[in-house]
Amino acid sequence: MGSPVHRVSMGDTWSRQVHPDIESERYKQSFDVERLTNILDGGAQNTALRRKVENIIHNDPAFSLKDNYFLTQNECYEAAVRKKFHFQMTAQRLGWAEDGPELYYAYRALSGNLAFSLHNIFLKALRSLGSEEQIAKWVPLCHRFQIIATYAQTELGHGTYLPGLETEATYDAATQEFVVHSPTMTATKWWPGDLGQSATHALVQAQLICSGARQGMHAFIVPIRSLQDHSPLPGITVGNIGPKMDLNHIDNGFLRLDHVRVPRENMLSRFAQVLPDGTYIKLGTAQSNYLSMVVMRVEMLSDVICTLQKACVIAIRYSVIRRQSRLRPRQVAPRGQPLQTGEPEAKILDHQTQQQKLLPQLATAYAFHFLARSLLEFFHRSHDAILDRDFSLLPELHALGAGTKAMVSDFCTHGAELCRRACGGHGYSKLSGLPSLVTKVTASCTFEGENTVLYLQVARFLVKSYQQAQASSGPTSQRSLPQSVAYLTAPYLAKCPAQRAADFLHPELYTKAWAHVAARLTNDSVQHIQILMRSGADEHEAWNRTTVIHLQAAKAHCYYVAVKSFTEALEKLESEPAVQQALKHLCDLYALHGILTNAGDFLHDGFLSGAQIDMARTAYLDLLLLVRKDAILLTDAFDFTDQSLNSALGCYDGNVYERLFHWAQESPSNTQVVEQNTL
Amino acid sequence: MGSPVHRVSMGDTWSRQVHPDIESERYKQSFDVERLTNILDGGAQNTALRRKVENIIHNDPAFSLKDNYFLTQNECYEAAVRKKFHFQMTAQRLGWAEDGPELYYAYRALSGNLAFSLHNIFLKALRSLGSEEQIAKWVPLCHRFQIIATYAQTELGHGTYLPGLETEATYDAATQEFVVHSPTMTATKWWPGDLGQSATHALVQAQLICSGARQGMHAFIVPIRSLQDHSPLPGITVGNIGPKMDLNHIDNGFLRLDHVRVPRENMLSRFAQVLPDGTYIKLGTAQSNYLSMVVMRVEMLSDVICTLQKACVIAIRYSVIRRQSRLRPRQVAPRGQPLQTGEPEAKILDHQTQQQKLLPQLATAYAFHFLARSLLEFFHRSHDAILDRDFSLLPELHALGAGTKAMVSDFCTHGAELCRRACGGHGYSKLSGLPSLVTKVTASCTFEGENTVLYLQVARFLVKSYQQAQASSGPTSQRSLPQSVAYLTAPYLAKCPAQRAADFLHPELYTKAWAHVAARLTNDSVQHIQILMRSGADEHEAWNRTTVIHLQAAKAHCYYVAVKSFTEALEKLESEPAVQQALKHLCDLYALHGILTNAGDFLHDGFLSGAQIDMARTAYLDLLLLVRKDAILLTDAFDFTDQSLNSALGCYDGNVYERLFHWAQESPSNTQVVEQNTL
Repeated sequence: MGSPVHRVSMGDTWSRQVHPDIESERYKQSFDVERLTNILDGGAQNTALRRKVENIIHNDPAFSLKDNYFLTQNECYEAAVRKKFHFQMTAQRLGWAEDGPELYYAYRALSGNLAFSLHNIFLKALRSLGSEEQIAKWVPLCHRFQIIATYAQTELGHGTYLPGLETEATYDAATQEFVVHSPTMTATKWWPGDLGQSATHALVQAQLICSGARQGMHAFIVPIRSLQDHSPLPGITVGNIGPKMDLNHIDNGFLRLDHVRVPRENMLSRFAQVLPDGTYIKLGTAQSNYLSMVVMRVEMLSDVICTLQKACVIAIRYSVIRRQSRLRPRQVAPRGQPLQTGEPEAKILDHQTQQQKLLPQLATAYAFHFLARSLLEFFHRSHDAILDRDFSLLPELHALGAGTKAMVSDFCTHGAELCRRACGGHGYSKLSGLPSLVTKVTASCTFEGENTVLYLQVARFLVKSYQQAQASSGPTSQRSLPQSVAYLTAPYLAKCPAQRAADFLHPELYTKAWAHVAARLTNDSVQHIQILMRSGADEHEAWNRTTVIHLQAAKAHCYYVAVKSFTEALEKLESEPAVQQALKHLCDLYALHGILTNAGDFLHDGFLSGAQIDMARTAYLDLLLLVRKDAILLTDAFDFTDQSLNSALGCYDGNVYERLFHWAQESPSNTQVVEQNTL
Repeated sequence: MGSPVHRVSMGDTWSRQVHPDIESERYKQSFDVERLTNILDGGAQNTALRRKVENIIHNDPAFSLKDNYFLTQNECYEAAVRKKFHFQMTAQRLGWAEDGPELYYAYRALSGNLAFSLHNIFLKALRSLGSEEQIAKWVPLCHRFQIIATYAQTELGHGTYLPGLETEATYDAATQEFVVHSPTMTATKWWPGDLGQSATHALVQAQLICSGARQGMHAFIVPIRSLQDHSPLPGITVGNIGPKMDLNHIDNGFLRLDHVRVPRENMLSRFAQVLPDGTYIKLGTAQSNYLSMVVMRVEMLSDVICTLQKACVIAIRYSVIRRQSRLRPRQVAPRGQPLQTGEPEAKILDHQTQQQKLLPQLATAYAFHFLARSLLEFFHRSHDAILDRDFSLLPELHALGAGTKAMVSDFCTHGAELCRRACGGHGYSKLSGLPSLVTKVTASCTFEGENTVLYLQVARFLVKSYQQAQASSGPTSQRSLPQSVAYLTAPYLAKCPAQRAADFLHPELYTKAWAHVAARLTNDSVQHIQILMRSGADEHEAWNRTTVIHLQAAKAHCYYVAVKSFTEALEKLESEPAVQQALKHLCDLYALHGILTNAGDFLHDGFLSGAQIDMARTAYLDLLLLVRKDAILLTDAFDFTDQSLNSALGCYDGNVYERLFHWAQESPSNTQVVEQNTL
């Protein structure tokens, strides 16, 4: 295999020469990298389309990410706005459909550095909560960018817990208007994207008060800036929330409303209406609201997983170029004698500790790819049923969505930082691309539901399912549980049957081990609640005093789901034995790394013995060597363009040091000094 | 106790009114906070001096950190330079001694945002490696800032492994000069602080070549910029390495040397000399070189630990102001009826999961305080011996220094990020102060020795000590081992005697448990090496294939040392029973959190049973509630000024939301926009 034709050069003079230390990693291919890329893309035609889109994006200088690491917060936002408008025009010119694959691939190539993502969130909320008239009125205004819209829910003092939101919308029957108001400092809307400098309209979530009664959260379209001169409208105080850890392409803002009046028609009214006289009418269940949270969480996954994949690509490529220490001390020549240089220093990827840092992350990046895909498939299946008002799959879908979001964002954040640190000092340079991956992805642990809260929702689902299984014992009970928790009724396996290291390479064995631990911890948390209740605690207190154990159970369950989805994905690759084998090493590594990291959970009830943990460790250490051999190929298979990686350390050609040196020359800390000197 | 008089107000109008939710936390004091502060400071007189210095710093507007979060990399460095010169003048005016306590306290108050720290590193290296003549010549130039010096060791392609450095200094007897040269791109010096824009001289570490023979690393003073016009001297290419994750007050630079000639006198010659004719003379051992690494690692500890302490202060204070969810669902009123607001939402610190996130971090911050102090005491004791050429304590000192640096930087980085995330969205705002704590402290995992490398040095010390203990069995062996590893020869305890949760509150019990695990893992790594060697691997290969286990052993050993130093510090507080009790909760929490997090290591050989782990968990959950009660007092006791915290979330008065709102208004993303609008 020559170097793939689609590789888009960074335009550097040296990039036609591949560094021999990375080239040698590509000589012997135990599997066809291109086939694996196709599998990851979901088919060769998708790979082709993706590369076509990437070429369009990367050949357009208006989309260049080159100076991204040199920009201030304001400059970064301005660049993101420019790119967004250029993007819209490009998409229109090329006829890319809204929600079509081209948009998705273009977005991936641009690593998401576009403004006005909240515009789309507004549209989604409008479509699920608005009446047909409202949709007909506002959607075209958005599409033509005649208005710039945002979605304003979170407040300065209130986040995840929606009943706590303070913003009020009081109906005034005399004028048929809602008076939208921030009664306190803490009611200030805080964080909505595109709000600080840009939005002309906000979809404001507020407590509806009509005829003196509170009716809970409803959504109101509130004009906030003049369409003539963009100045804030009367009663509106709006601005930017200031410097952040990253995400400077998002103009996060604040909004205070001082008795702002909007017409009655501006309350989104698919599920509830206020009649002119102030009568409140509920028009149905807002369960699709619930569904839209799942949608958001499923949609964000691929971005988050890309972060870990990119971090792995960068760190692993760097680790075959960087050399450090000899694995064997050099023969010391007598002092004063010329030393033979002899064996060069070792590639750092040949150190066991470096493998231990990076290769489980690579395995995780693959595991999450297949997990997200399986969740998406389940989502599409259940979505159709839910739209047909069959809500039976919703609890499981919600739990899977919440748990996957929490686990994926947690592990990707942890893994990206691990990759960054594994690059030593250079990982601290923004030019490595790693700092921005870390500071971006860590936000995903908090937004769209804080991870601890999400894990506890998973735990609630586990406890309910467990109790349901207990209540209806017998052979039918297993069938009645949702598939992802069917293991809660599986026959009890007191001890793992493994007798040698090789036994730990059986997917069935380690999948069962994870199921056992998830079930045991769920049982443990149920027991803990019961003990507390027997000693006088009420249900809520007992629940709250068990949340530490709930978290453990939920995490084990999520890990089980990920292991299971990976093994199922492998089974479908029978026609591709070489690729299947390479991926099986990763699946084994993923499962065993998890077992060793959480050994206490497996040893606790004697399911595994200390001797078996040692066997698992032996299997794990051997796997590190196997995955080491394929490591560069497995990172190549993600097929990120050099431009989207935007990393001096992670380019395909391995010319790490030249690129780092030359990029540094262009930074403002050098160019601005030169300017001063020459002035 | 009223609010302490030394508290320096931020100058905000609301700061005289303490938020009732934080005030209530200070009503009932189970111990005297001021006494704990004195203990942390090492005496009431130190507390008084510290506060005096803090007042001087904070009352001087030239030292204000107010706009720190708004600056670009260049602006930040310029501010750091201005502050540094103002600092020097202030110190001179007030007669603060070099290395005196006032400088230390002033530095703490300024959170380290000063330039030219490398100037001091240069001085230290000069003093330990230079001859008396060299010291007499260069020190005064530095002190008067007639030169600005840096220390240039790390290269673009080489870091921790010193024999790999490529820069060469070839002696030319004809001119009695050294020709200092970067033979390759990867030999470029990379990372030295103050180098990019400022330094006039660099202490360059280079391979000495004289009379055709390589003599290893030596240090050379190389002038790099003109003292007239600051332009780079002939043969010098110098600049800044570009944008970084943080640490913008440090002007990290690069340096390429093209056959730069320096006089023979510029080689530091305390331990080696080159005679005019090129004869190389070794003048003694450079073991004090080795010592200087320990000094650096001990000196950096207090900065790193401060980071975790500050993160705890900010997150815990915020967690008694922030309210979220009710611990018990509100009585649902029939829809359309006015709802009674009733019980307010819970302080987030009252959620068990929030306690689980923050309180072990607080315990760790205290544990590390006492660990660093005990290391410092040991350091001073052994330092004197070493200067008297008694090197017997050096291996232990080196291992303790390396292990403590690695553990402390690892845990403080992890803990600071945990605290940041525990503040939800607001933790992502730079105005919280948390992002910069995280992005600064994470650098400490890499510099002054990469942590994995340091842990492996600890492991080597453990394995050697273990083998020494094995070789000399009998009652004398214990005495012959260094104190910190004496447990390797302690009588073997097969099972932990704990029978109930309360037993886990005995310091002796959990200290022994940690010793047991550290000894078992050391034994495990020795066994693993032997098995590999029996199957044909040579010594080095066997070592390299065991590093994953070495890491585990080294980490357990370090945790043991920290637990032990904490328990020993407690014993000395008998005359302060109330403070002692509050600290004992933290010590217990620290030890048990570690046991539960690493349960697998304790269960592996049956030392703890699953039932005992559950007892430890019960004790741990009860401790969370106890420490919760004291949490604000324990953070107050660190006695950080609001200015040095520089956090909208973490001020003493708890006025979180007002401060966040007002600080945001002042950010460039608002003020620069206003300017545009008004122009």
